[in-house]
Amino acid sequence: MSSTIGKIFSVTTFGESHGSCIGAVIEGCPSGLEIGEQNIELQLARRRPGQGSLCSTRNEPDNVRIVSGVEAGLTLGSPIALIIDNKDKRTADYVDFANIPRPSHADFAYRSRYGISSASGGGRASARETAARVAGGAVAEKYLQDRHGVDIVAWVSAVSNVESADISVDTVTRADVDASEVRCPDLSSAKAMAAMISGVAEAGDSVGGVITCVCRNVPAGWGEPVFDKVDAMLASAVLSIPACKGFEIGSGFSGTCMRGSEHNDMFVMKGSRLGTGTNRSGGVQGGITNGEPVIFRAAFKPVASIRLPQHTVDYDGKSVVLEIKGRHDPCVLPRAVPVVEAMAAIVLADMARRRG
Amino acid sequence: MSSTIGKIFSVTTFGESHGSCIGAVIEGCPSGLEIGEQNIELQLARRRPGQGSLCSTRNEPDNVRIVSGVEAGLTLGSPIALIIDNKDKRTADYVDFANIPRPSHADFAYRSRYGISSASGGGRASARETAARVAGGAVAEKYLQDRHGVDIVAWVSAVSNVESADISVDTVTRADVDASEVRCPDLSSAKAMAAMISGVAEAGDSVGGVITCVCRNVPAGWGEPVFDKVDAMLASAVLSIPACKGFEIGSGFSGTCMRGSEHNDMFVMKGSRLGTGTNRSGGVQGGITNGEPVIFRAAFKPVASIRLPQHTVDYDGKSVVLEIKGRHDPCVLPRAVPVVEAMAAIVLADMARRRG
Amino acid sequence: MSSTIGKIFSVTTFGESHGSCIGAVIEGCPSGLEIGEQNIELQLARRRPGQGSLCSTRNEPDNVRIVSGVEAGLTLGSPIALIIDNKDKRTADYVDFANIPRPSHADFAYRSRYGISSASGGGRASARETAARVAGGAVAEKYLQDRHGVDIVAWVSAVSNVESADISVDTVTRADVDASEVRCPDLSSAKAMAAMISGVAEAGDSVGGVITCVCRNVPAGWGEPVFDKVDAMLASAVLSIPACKGFEIGSGFSGTCMRGSEHNDMFVMKGSRLGTGTNRSGGVQGGITNGEPVIFRAAFKPVASIRLPQHTVDYDGKSVVLEIKGRHDPCVLPRAVPVVEAMAAIVLADMARRRG
Amino acid sequence: MSSTIGKIFSVTTFGESHGSCIGAVIEGCPSGLEIGEQNIELQLARRRPGQGSLCSTRNEPDNVRIVSGVEAGLTLGSPIALIIDNKDKRTADYVDFANIPRPSHADFAYRSRYGISSASGGGRASARETAARVAGGAVAEKYLQDRHGVDIVAWVSAVSNVESADISVDTVTRADVDASEVRCPDLSSAKAMAAMISGVAEAGDSVGGVITCVCRNVPAGWGEPVFDKVDAMLASAVLSIPACKGFEIGSGFSGTCMRGSEHNDMFVMKGSRLGTGTNRSGGVQGGITNGEPVIFRAAFKPVASIRLPQHTVDYDGKSVVLEIKGRHDPCVLPRAVPVVEAMAAIVLADMARRRG
Repeated sequence: MSSTIGKIFSVTTFGESHGSCIGAVIEGCPSGLEIGEQNIELQLARRRPGQGSLCSTRNEPDNVRIVSGVEAGLTLGSPIALIIDNKDKRTADYVDFANIPRPSHADFAYRSRYGISSASGGGRASARETAARVAGGAVAEKYLQDRHGVDIVAWVSAVSNVESADISVDTVTRADVDASEVRCPDLSSAKAMAAMISGVAEAGDSVGGVITCVCRNVPAGWGEPVFDKVDAMLASAVLSIPACKGFEIGSGFSGTCMRGSEHNDMFVMKGSRLGTGTNRSGGVQGGITNGEPVIFRAAFKPVASIRLPQHTVDYDGKSVVLEIKGRHDPCVLPRAVPVVEAMAAIVLADMARRRG
Repeated sequence: MSSTIGKIFSVTTFGESHGSCIGAVIEGCPSGLEIGEQNIELQLARRRPGQGSLCSTRNEPDNVRIVSGVEAGLTLGSPIALIIDNKDKRTADYVDFANIPRPSHADFAYRSRYGISSASGGGRASARETAARVAGGAVAEKYLQDRHGVDIVAWVSAVSNVESADISVDTVTRADVDASEVRCPDLSSAKAMAAMISGVAEAGDSVGGVITCVCRNVPAGWGEPVFDKVDAMLASAVLSIPACKGFEIGSGFSGTCMRGSEHNDMFVMKGSRLGTGTNRSGGVQGGITNGEPVIFRAAFKPVASIRLPQHTVDYDGKSVVLEIKGRHDPCVLPRAVPVVEAMAAIVLADMARRRG
Repeated sequence: MSSTIGKIFSVTTFGESHGSCIGAVIEGCPSGLEIGEQNIELQLARRRPGQGSLCSTRNEPDNVRIVSGVEAGLTLGSPIALIIDNKDKRTADYVDFANIPRPSHADFAYRSRYGISSASGGGRASARETAARVAGGAVAEKYLQDRHGVDIVAWVSAVSNVESADISVDTVTRADVDASEVRCPDLSSAKAMAAMISGVAEAGDSVGGVITCVCRNVPAGWGEPVFDKVDAMLASAVLSIPACKGFEIGSGFSGTCMRGSEHNDMFVMKGSRLGTGTNRSGGVQGGITNGEPVIFRAAFKPVASIRLPQHTVDYDGKSVVLEIKGRHDPCVLPRAVPVVEAMAAIVLADMARRRG
Repeated sequence: MSSTIGKIFSVTTFGESHGSCIGAVIEGCPSGLEIGEQNIELQLARRRPGQGSLCSTRNEPDNVRIVSGVEAGLTLGSPIALIIDNKDKRTADYVDFANIPRPSHADFAYRSRYGISSASGGGRASARETAARVAGGAVAEKYLQDRHGVDIVAWVSAVSNVESADISVDTVTRADVDASEVRCPDLSSAKAMAAMISGVAEAGDSVGGVITCVCRNVPAGWGEPVFDKVDAMLASAVLSIPACKGFEIGSGFSGTCMRGSEHNDMFVMKGSRLGTGTNRSGGVQGGITNGEPVIFRAAFKPVASIRLPQHTVDYDGKSVVLEIKGRHDPCVLPRAVPVVEAMAAIVLADMARRRG
């Protein structure tokens, strides 16, 4: 069941880049929720390629069909199935390197696992699969918003060594994020990031970066002790996104250099509720939310598909120079923003439903 | 089932710091494996408090009893149950702050989750629970070693801003790690780390750091696509350790500053197998191992329990100055080393068994 | 995740009777297995309505599309997604009783669970969902046959009080079963059963019965101790089929009247392997297969949808006489045969894969 | 994780007949529930051997220790661990037949599964494991009673061919059940059953029977669609009890002989709620409760351990006459009553908690 995430609110994705469609099955969504294709397509549009000069030119309009679980615009409580057709397949792009494992791709690992290779662009490892996550996440988000007022916003906080200035986690909106093509709400940094991506693209190379995500209005008391801690589940969900290599919550790696007396979040009254003056915990203590914003960061490596020639070996051990054509993003970060939001939404929806 | 980790090779932990015992139930361990209490106690001894001048003085010898699943020194294939008695309980230490949520502890979050509080040292959130993980991990490790030759070594690579010099991931041993009390195989850094911990301890404060872990001889082809990727499962397992705030695999956060052309791990022949010349992927590609060492890093925040007075509020919102007595480590890192190894072993054992 | 069955070899179904399609996601299927749409459609054809005079006249040709996980006729090891379009929808048939919970249907229970009702023929409770099970089961069966030589045959052993003569569990084939429209290999009983079904259909009524299933060549040693016993998993899988009200393995309810000395299956040599002289255990002992044929029986109640007027009350408690039109089977048994086979195949495939 | 049952309210059992202890870990139990050892020991006492002339003389007082999750008599919401010491072990009883697979026991199947055998009375397959189920079930039952008013009563409705007269499912109590040693509330049948068991015991043989269970005041709307139906989960839970060979809900196998027009449960008003006039559905429709009593029956085969000599073969295929000494029940039914209640309670508690 490695294609399923979540225990009560769960999402199962299916399909591949080069089949006829991909999709998602969502379980545990409460009934009576107003939802339509348009709620889902809003986020799909933010993930789709071909959005501007910084993206792959593969053109997928990504319309979604709700094939079960919703009637007259309301969820029935029973499982929801969503289908997104694949409209722009070009298998031919991948034929050339059928015998060459692409460096830092899943090709070689998949062949080691399964003893067989897909000739078609990575199979389940393809980034195309993330559209199904975004669709499932949009349903999770609708539930979190309508029933709990939870509000999730992610943005690009670094592209390579170009870092965003501090962003106010209390007020930043998706409109702020979408104000730049690169999805960094600090517009001056956004400009520098865009310039860097363009330069890298021209050079036939790729570049990585960091996405920061804040989940606001998450009530205190969501999460589980021991293994299914909110932060552990977020880490797992985020690391399962292709190209993600790191996760940190709250103070994360930089918090390791602080003293306990600096790092501890002292309690204070915030109106009638107990809050903390600082939020180095990132909204999670002992694996359970404490009512402060949940804040985490995800590291994305530079995209493995590059136009520059690569000196590697084929499956027979013969030296080859690989030149990948196809259509690939020089930087996956702007399009990964809604994917990160989706993973956060799915984890929080599950935690909300698991409270029992 | 938040106290269970793993799908086929799984570990369920039970018990709390201040009950009569803690324990673990291990399922999916193959039969015919030679195992005895001594295999488990070796790792328990590395985790237990009171090992030296840098640790809590709570004294738990941590003997383990195997109560099922093993006969005449051989695993039966059926579930293995392990029990570790709690010998040194001091509930009184915790009575003082029954009405004060300790800053950056689980107290407030647990009360929000469950509407009730344990008066006894954190309940399931207590670090005591990690002894059960270490016991389960020791069984996982025995299986991985005996059947697959897998070799796992973790060490302290940073205490606050004192970083270890580069350690050879191919050759470092547990003996190297245990050569210093602080468990850093770079002995000169180890000395500086120990000095820092002592200074912080004297000041009644605490300090965090980073643990690096390498898993050698993991065959190519372990792992699952989509959500249950090896790196995602490792991230979840590691983040579920108390005080852990970050995880990165391979190049992690620093890899975000590289170009794709620098970051990609080119394939080369290593004897008769395909390997990679560099290992920025950290041994995992597309969620599945590629035969290179699996390398990850875990960030631990400074321990929340400090002797220094803390200005906070109680559950009624009244300002208080909290002074925690009890017995606490100024730095959890040295004792967390076998816990990190245990979590890695449990995840890899599950992946080995899930291959089917 | 109530739409998923199985832990390693798992099947998730999606879709409803009156949406655009239904489907299944199959995980844990080994790679390199030859499979095509035709393998699946063979069993779908046995389940589909409109097969003869004894069935609903709803006409669903039930072509399946494999949209992921199979390439060039071979499974890739990654998840397999299957889609079956719904071609013959008639929502109008159900409009009349939107405010009347149909007796012994899921309508009232669903509304109690979800606070809302589907107007469209039962939603996920519709028998249409079982086509997705049959599709998933066909993949499980292909794996079991090709890799383990397992052979599964189910048949109608009773329609109401008309019972089949003894059938040889060692030799009965699907051809024998399909020799009669009613799917009872004892042709003389089949004739009596068909007559009974026709009579009941004419009267606007419905009738139940029993399906027996044998799984041959299942190796000894499949299954799990404690809760996930083979027989427990079979019971759960079979009871999850709509209209199923009972399950028994081996001697079942009739075995309760025997003495231990009669009931115990004495061991004997069968060629070079240890077998049992009798098979009252039904091939399972202690939850694990013993190498003898796995034999179980499933009880199906009479279909709840009948043409005869029913005196009941609507959701407001008002007395009504309900007359259901639509297209319904007078007896679900013949079409349930491949569904029972599918559930057995999914459970056994999971057990095979869980052996590790 | 085959030792775990339930998704949100879950019970993991551990230990074996001949280790130092057995136990259970219960997760998902709400906080603030009053519970003490005495609540659990009440049901353990009904399961323990040595209760009277009809039982094994093995003497286990079965005291339970709550080692986590409960403080000051209240559940904390975090996992509850329970331990029951094994006080009366006699491994020697089992040494004689180390090389003989006992007929209709798990010995041979376990050895096929694991390639190794326990010399100690069946390992996890031992009926001793059911004490841990009863302990976990007692916690489930306390939750169901205190929070939902659910009331569960099981009784022996048949011993071999001696059947109980009809029992009123609406009024029967545990006191009624315990009025006879054989646990049949129809005292005249109870007498005949006891006589039969005594006769069989004297002959060194064993006998099976049927247990009926009713769960009253279960609200409408508990359960899940598709695979995790209440009846499917009950079937699985009940079939996982050692010696259970069959399960039926509501009309079960006898309902297969009815017409739909007789079998359908017409809706009627019961006070202000919608109920059904008859209850052939057994309180479950479409896998979800409908507010009527949940009624099911479980078939138990005659105990496999008998004193009479058995002509069988050993693992080497050599003919042997097996004479089992040890201490065994001639009829497991009276002691299985609380085990059946426990399994029902665990399933219903999970369904209650999964409602979200």
